[in-house]
Amino acid sequence: MELLHNIIENKFTLGVIGIGRVGLPFGVSFAQKGVNVVGFDINEEIIRKVNSGQAPFFEVGLQDYMNEVSRTKKFTATNDHSLLQNVDVVIITVGTPLNTHMVPDYSQLFSALDKIVQYPISNKLIIIRSTSSPGTLESIVKPYIERKTNLKAGEDFFLAACPERIAGGKCIEELHGLPEIIGGISENCSRLTAEVFRKLNPNKKIFFTTPKSAELAKLFANVYRYVNFALANEFGLIAEEHGEDAHEIIKIVNEDYNRGKIPLPGLTGGPCLSKDGYFLTQHMPFPEFIHMASQLNENIPHHVISKLKKELAKENKTLVQCKVAVLGLAYKSGIDDTRLSPAVKLVDVLNGERCEVVTYDPYVNPSSGSLNDVVKDVDAIIIATNHPEFKILPTVLNGMTSNPIVIDCWRMFDGKELKGKYIAFGKGK
Amino acid sequence: MELLHNIIENKFTLGVIGIGRVGLPFGVSFAQKGVNVVGFDINEEIIRKVNSGQAPFFEVGLQDYMNEVSRTKKFTATNDHSLLQNVDVVIITVGTPLNTHMVPDYSQLFSALDKIVQYPISNKLIIIRSTSSPGTLESIVKPYIERKTNLKAGEDFFLAACPERIAGGKCIEELHGLPEIIGGISENCSRLTAEVFRKLNPNKKIFFTTPKSAELAKLFANVYRYVNFALANEFGLIAEEHGEDAHEIIKIVNEDYNRGKIPLPGLTGGPCLSKDGYFLTQHMPFPEFIHMASQLNENIPHHVISKLKKELAKENKTLVQCKVAVLGLAYKSGIDDTRLSPAVKLVDVLNGERCEVVTYDPYVNPSSGSLNDVVKDVDAIIIATNHPEFKILPTVLNGMTSNPIVIDCWRMFDGKELKGKYIAFGKGK
Repeated sequence: MELLHNIIENKFTLGVIGIGRVGLPFGVSFAQKGVNVVGFDINEEIIRKVNSGQAPFFEVGLQDYMNEVSRTKKFTATNDHSLLQNVDVVIITVGTPLNTHMVPDYSQLFSALDKIVQYPISNKLIIIRSTSSPGTLESIVKPYIERKTNLKAGEDFFLAACPERIAGGKCIEELHGLPEIIGGISENCSRLTAEVFRKLNPNKKIFFTTPKSAELAKLFANVYRYVNFALANEFGLIAEEHGEDAHEIIKIVNEDYNRGKIPLPGLTGGPCLSKDGYFLTQHMPFPEFIHMASQLNENIPHHVISKLKKELAKENKTLVQCKVAVLGLAYKSGIDDTRLSPAVKLVDVLNGERCEVVTYDPYVNPSSGSLNDVVKDVDAIIIATNHPEFKILPTVLNGMTSNPIVIDCWRMFDGKELKGKYIAFGKGK
Repeated sequence: MELLHNIIENKFTLGVIGIGRVGLPFGVSFAQKGVNVVGFDINEEIIRKVNSGQAPFFEVGLQDYMNEVSRTKKFTATNDHSLLQNVDVVIITVGTPLNTHMVPDYSQLFSALDKIVQYPISNKLIIIRSTSSPGTLESIVKPYIERKTNLKAGEDFFLAACPERIAGGKCIEELHGLPEIIGGISENCSRLTAEVFRKLNPNKKIFFTTPKSAELAKLFANVYRYVNFALANEFGLIAEEHGEDAHEIIKIVNEDYNRGKIPLPGLTGGPCLSKDGYFLTQHMPFPEFIHMASQLNENIPHHVISKLKKELAKENKTLVQCKVAVLGLAYKSGIDDTRLSPAVKLVDVLNGERCEVVTYDPYVNPSSGSLNDVVKDVDAIIIATNHPEFKILPTVLNGMTSNPIVIDCWRMFDGKELKGKYIAFGKGK
């Protein structure tokens, strides 16, 4: 195959459709290895920033790579999809969210495909990196492209699923280190895809499987985590009910015990874990099991607020009279991603209660002032994301005259170091 | 405390109430370390066997320990509970099963306590090793003993929860190596209990917590495993639905991926995992989540049989006309314990279908003949327990003229090495 030879010899151009949190670190990492990369997006602001060498969001190591790539000019961002003509390998990294009926919404994926098929695709390789339900590649994407082009996948052009498995905040590191799970429409599709990934790391471990298994693998991995976080939260609720401390119990259980790797309770959400269960539960046996995990995790922000309400009631206050500071908006520690963040949900619920809410997240809004200013006259503080920057809270509170209630969703503190009332999710009296 | 001193100096007698699969390895292990142990039971057959130096069930290393202890005469089994008078420390290891309403049945536990309180318990230590719902020690056992004796726990006598966490087949090894989680009614109760366990291993890691947290810790550990097995089984069902192979997918996901430790599908049950969820779900938020795991796991034997029925239907046969060999009766590999075994459930369901069932388990019935004889004229074989002894099945079948359907609940085989129709749980076409 000529394309195989060209990939091996690095005589090819890689197109990345969607240069968001998956696509940009991906494209830039390839460019950093000397591959010619064109990143496609419809967001002009992102394109402008990226072309001026600026990372449009925070991701560990991304800005360094972008600085390097700015010098070598190996990465270009564009909204001009006619440049797809010049691309030999195209990877689709657009979002596949759920719609309001909790059904996967592939509109961005098919919009990307529609652009791709406007130009000749003979001998080109198309890789789907976006999350999709099992069977999407074989039963929808493949016949869709074939119908639009009158070409045959695996013969005239090449097509593979290779779902992204990286974690926000570790994208660059994991892109190089994690194994890839490749499900090509045919053996040569898989082989070409593997060669592309070997540009990033010649020793990358590669697993070849069917497209459906590749799609399932990604979903199994995320649903496994999501269900385990739900279980940890269940244990948090149970421990509270019994007046005990789930964090302490779980740490004890896990230590020197090879059958125990129970995660700790905390707010669970984010753009992957929250939705991936629904990609699996279509025409599936026992969908309730995964849906229950979702209900449980989605209930935790409400549960935390009801803990706050009970505490306020003891002081004869209601939420509507109060000012509450929410620390953290990102869905997890050390990142600025707020998509499907339980911290944002918490703010929404508080707003619905008509209480005065102030928020503080040094990752999401780096210019949002100091922790000091945010918490100085509030009735309560909710730690919604466990950013390490919040560790100074006890010192900040010690320097103040007020005594806000602190609700710790992450057990960042023991409680003793904080003056005033301390309440932790997963801990009873 | 005199008792503390006596424990440290090994001038004490340990009583173990219930010398079954938990109590016997426990008592014998202490005796092997030179502690005087009296094991109490109501089963005369067990007492006779144990006193003649014979392990009444299979457990790795137990018979060796019993041989040693027979010589030193450090362990005596008895049904004479008046000997409780001579005991300084008594540990209760009786079963706490669920009753038919799925409510914990503590009758054996309270029957043991009733015997204990017939004799003076001043300055004695009572340890509850049986599984119990959170709060049982503090809210039921403690006031029960205090009412019966007019003595005060933590002052006049000592009381602690230290639930067993060992796995069948690894009891002896884990009893020495695993950390203990001790929840005493008071600090001195915990300290005494720790000193007892240090007789087994002076470097044993010991965690001190509240009685409720100790009870919860045991339940969290088992429910965590049970829910994860349910999830693995869910993945098995999903993979089947999509015509893919859950084992292959899960192995790929887990490799070199520190967020993936997904267990493999298989029949899930046994005396601990099956029931422990119900100890937690009393007056608990979201009991459905754990109940769903139970429904899912309990459904797998039915699911496997319906796979067999579909396969037989292709040959125009129904179960009632067939002879089926079930390989394995124990609830997991390498042991002879059939309590709440899904393999036994499978046999029950087959019997209910009025098919002819033959069973074979070299651990449960060591004298049950050869695999060859069992499978020679059957229509189907179900591998219900993954005992390593079944690995010879392909060779056995190759030597036969018949071609039974093989249903593999554990993916012991790839399928290609077996002649005839091979069907695996968790694997589609």
